[in-house]
Amino acid sequence: MSSSDIFIGETIGTAVLILLGGGVCAAVTLKASKARNAGWLAITFGWGFAVMTAVYISAPLSGAHLNPAVTLGIAIKDDDWSNLLTYWSGQLLGAMIGALLVWVAYYGQFLAHLTDREIVGGPGAQDVKSVEAREAKAGPVLGVFSTGPEVRVAWQNVATEVIGTVVLVLAVLTQGLNDSGKGLGTLGALITAFVVVGIGLSLGGPTGYAINPVRDLGPRIVHALLPLPNKGGSDWSYAWVPVVGPLIGGAIAAGLYNVAFA
Amino acid sequence: MSSSDIFIGETIGTAVLILLGGGVCAAVTLKASKARNAGWLAITFGWGFAVMTAVYISAPLSGAHLNPAVTLGIAIKDDDWSNLLTYWSGQLLGAMIGALLVWVAYYGQFLAHLTDREIVGGPGAQDVKSVEAREAKAGPVLGVFSTGPEVRVAWQNVATEVIGTVVLVLAVLTQGLNDSGKGLGTLGALITAFVVVGIGLSLGGPTGYAINPVRDLGPRIVHALLPLPNKGGSDWSYAWVPVVGPLIGGAIAAGLYNVAFA
Amino acid sequence: MSSSDIFIGETIGTAVLILLGGGVCAAVTLKASKARNAGWLAITFGWGFAVMTAVYISAPLSGAHLNPAVTLGIAIKDDDWSNLLTYWSGQLLGAMIGALLVWVAYYGQFLAHLTDREIVGGPGAQDVKSVEAREAKAGPVLGVFSTGPEVRVAWQNVATEVIGTVVLVLAVLTQGLNDSGKGLGTLGALITAFVVVGIGLSLGGPTGYAINPVRDLGPRIVHALLPLPNKGGSDWSYAWVPVVGPLIGGAIAAGLYNVAFA
Amino acid sequence: MSSSDIFIGETIGTAVLILLGGGVCAAVTLKASKARNAGWLAITFGWGFAVMTAVYISAPLSGAHLNPAVTLGIAIKDDDWSNLLTYWSGQLLGAMIGALLVWVAYYGQFLAHLTDREIVGGPGAQDVKSVEAREAKAGPVLGVFSTGPEVRVAWQNVATEVIGTVVLVLAVLTQGLNDSGKGLGTLGALITAFVVVGIGLSLGGPTGYAINPVRDLGPRIVHALLPLPNKGGSDWSYAWVPVVGPLIGGAIAAGLYNVAFA
Repeated sequence: MSSSDIFIGETIGTAVLILLGGGVCAAVTLKASKARNAGWLAITFGWGFAVMTAVYISAPLSGAHLNPAVTLGIAIKDDDWSNLLTYWSGQLLGAMIGALLVWVAYYGQFLAHLTDREIVGGPGAQDVKSVEAREAKAGPVLGVFSTGPEVRVAWQNVATEVIGTVVLVLAVLTQGLNDSGKGLGTLGALITAFVVVGIGLSLGGPTGYAINPVRDLGPRIVHALLPLPNKGGSDWSYAWVPVVGPLIGGAIAAGLYNVAFA
Repeated sequence: MSSSDIFIGETIGTAVLILLGGGVCAAVTLKASKARNAGWLAITFGWGFAVMTAVYISAPLSGAHLNPAVTLGIAIKDDDWSNLLTYWSGQLLGAMIGALLVWVAYYGQFLAHLTDREIVGGPGAQDVKSVEAREAKAGPVLGVFSTGPEVRVAWQNVATEVIGTVVLVLAVLTQGLNDSGKGLGTLGALITAFVVVGIGLSLGGPTGYAINPVRDLGPRIVHALLPLPNKGGSDWSYAWVPVVGPLIGGAIAAGLYNVAFA
Repeated sequence: MSSSDIFIGETIGTAVLILLGGGVCAAVTLKASKARNAGWLAITFGWGFAVMTAVYISAPLSGAHLNPAVTLGIAIKDDDWSNLLTYWSGQLLGAMIGALLVWVAYYGQFLAHLTDREIVGGPGAQDVKSVEAREAKAGPVLGVFSTGPEVRVAWQNVATEVIGTVVLVLAVLTQGLNDSGKGLGTLGALITAFVVVGIGLSLGGPTGYAINPVRDLGPRIVHALLPLPNKGGSDWSYAWVPVVGPLIGGAIAAGLYNVAFA
Repeated sequence: MSSSDIFIGETIGTAVLILLGGGVCAAVTLKASKARNAGWLAITFGWGFAVMTAVYISAPLSGAHLNPAVTLGIAIKDDDWSNLLTYWSGQLLGAMIGALLVWVAYYGQFLAHLTDREIVGGPGAQDVKSVEAREAKAGPVLGVFSTGPEVRVAWQNVATEVIGTVVLVLAVLTQGLNDSGKGLGTLGALITAFVVVGIGLSLGGPTGYAINPVRDLGPRIVHALLPLPNKGGSDWSYAWVPVVGPLIGGAIAAGLYNVAFA
């Protein structure tokens, strides 16, 4: 794979990932959406199929990392750091493009939601109380863009993100052992999708399972830049957790892989 | 593939697609249905498995485009326009047959629903308010047949349909790269199903994700022709959006493919 | 495949199918079940994975028809009637064994449900009103065993069952074209599962989608024989519909296959 | 496979299984979780993808039994008992590690839940009444760790666990016949996942479907040892049921396999 294929593949793939992943958060959260209040299962399957679609589209170009923690894990496993920054930069750019596309696709819904706050009273997620608590700190539509914790204790939040990312990256790294060198093709995309649905259902409760630094940071930057009325703050004090936690998780997964599986 | 195989395959396949896709809308919407109010997840998985079943059945005959935007995207990618009209005409005919079969399968439910409006008060979808708003414009059972926007601003609705269709057609076009020439077989049908579930969950909120011109136009024609009591209008003023938006999306996806993947 | 393998495979497979399919109806319906009121999605996915598990287990022995309509369709397609009665008798026996196993697995729930009717007031399905209407005619736990229509008009109910079964059998028959002679293996089990989930979501609303004569008749016989208190009638006046409708559907699918696909 | 690979693979795999399986119970049950009250479908899909992820990760090392009943069934089928204790001890250790990781990932949620009982009033599962009944006997968060019956009659609970485990182990044993010797790879992980979702939906209502001795015993030991405030009892009087029932089920499945399939 050439550097340009990697960069283009990761940009397109991560854009699709965040378009669909952020999209399901918008769909379930915003006013005037047919999917409003569709629930936690809708969010977790939405993110899972977002990963599947993005992996499927970008695998032929870049191998579909789409996640700096995956790239870090693979670099440690192979001890090959040559393309790390190409992957990472394509991923961050793609995540920002994806968040912008969510804004375009849900433009009318954002307006309806943000200009009618006294009626809505919050993003309308499942657990109204915890959402209201988060809203007071981080603004009413930040949840469409980035993650936030239900109980805000940094070491706990980092620990949860580390654990979720270890599971994800371990599943990605063992793919080569299960699929005899075919790489990330059709079945790999499917398995990865359901691994991500599973992590969401099982480990998403405390922090909203970023498990991917650019999935959180890219849309947070876009949230900070977009001219949305009443959008609230971008919660920068939390922003380091979903970057550092997943990177630690990716490194631990690679270490575990090298000790137990290699 | 011969022209007659293409025409027959697309007719049968698109009939199955719209029978099952329109069927889940009827199941969730109409009175006296066991699935009434089953929610947005039921609708999105119903449409996804509609696509899977239809692709699986028709792939051996016609390659299972089932969507003029897919046919357009493949024609642009291959620069081969010889069968375009055969595909398109089979797709439109199949969509109309499928909508008729929904009417037959749910005949008793349509009667129960449409002749007892004062009790029902609307199609009973998740978000009662937005459904009522649409009902005032477009009639109480049009949602079983065709899509309609929650916020009716043409350029926004077109943009949402374009974005959703780009994702769909890009996933279809990259299939050849992932599955080494096997075409649309079992795994392709499965992946496409979940791509469509994902688009529904993530991008279906604003317009109901037609992402396929005949999926909207065929059933709308049938709605206009069927002798249903109290059926309301067919909302022809919106009918161009889910035709034009997906075609633009298919063309953009093919252009992106030719630039980045070919 | 020998006759004894066919008979044993169909008996085991259909027993698993009805154990899991009837089981999800019991789980969602009966008192003192953790899954009570889990909804229509749970029922449709439960039946889909029932089919998948049963196909997967019995495919090596008998090819996993598990449905007289499928056996009829394959007999017409191949014009080979030699094993038809072996398949059918194994299927009916298996369906009865499966219904008995549901009774064993949910013994405490049946007792809790049937001996406390004044508190419960009905099987607790999604649409309380329609369930109550059926209950007056057919007894409070018949829905755990067999299907019943929401609108009881024989030709409409037959038509709905015919349409659903055509889709099912067409998907089974085209399997040979998609999977190059490998028959019903892993992927076939998966596809068939999701086809059945799709038919349930899209065409299950009016009659509860028997789409399989023994799925309805076998458990209905067991319901008539079991010594359950307050179990209500077995609704024999409807029993012919989910037998005749699916057989017609299987024959139509085979005819369509022979004309368009062969 | 070497003994150490088996032990390490089963430990890692069962840890992932219980981390994700216990995790979804915590996510749906505990206060201050985004997935609270997400419902029975979330629980069953969460456990299914827990199995898939764990099988996928550990299959290259140990063949991914992850369940003493599966190990027993395979030992009977092959009449090879050489590694039985290695498998079993790795599985029990892994289950305990997994339960500990759930505690770490949901630390803040456990605290929020257990120190605010007068507000919460119970684990918040679907059927509040049956949960309250169990809570009186077994403590308010035991359901995050281990299973418990809705109707507490030992022979019925054993019977339900036996039936569920027969289905599971039969599906695992027939895998070799469906996948021509490839063992537990990608497709096997996927099929097994959906078999487990199906068993949960269809047979989970009465006892919560342990269908795996260490899935219940390992977390129960951890529950007994963890210093959680107000955690309630560990319900040791029931603990033998989800150990003995699944082992009987695994043996029956192997016997049935040897008679009918071998």
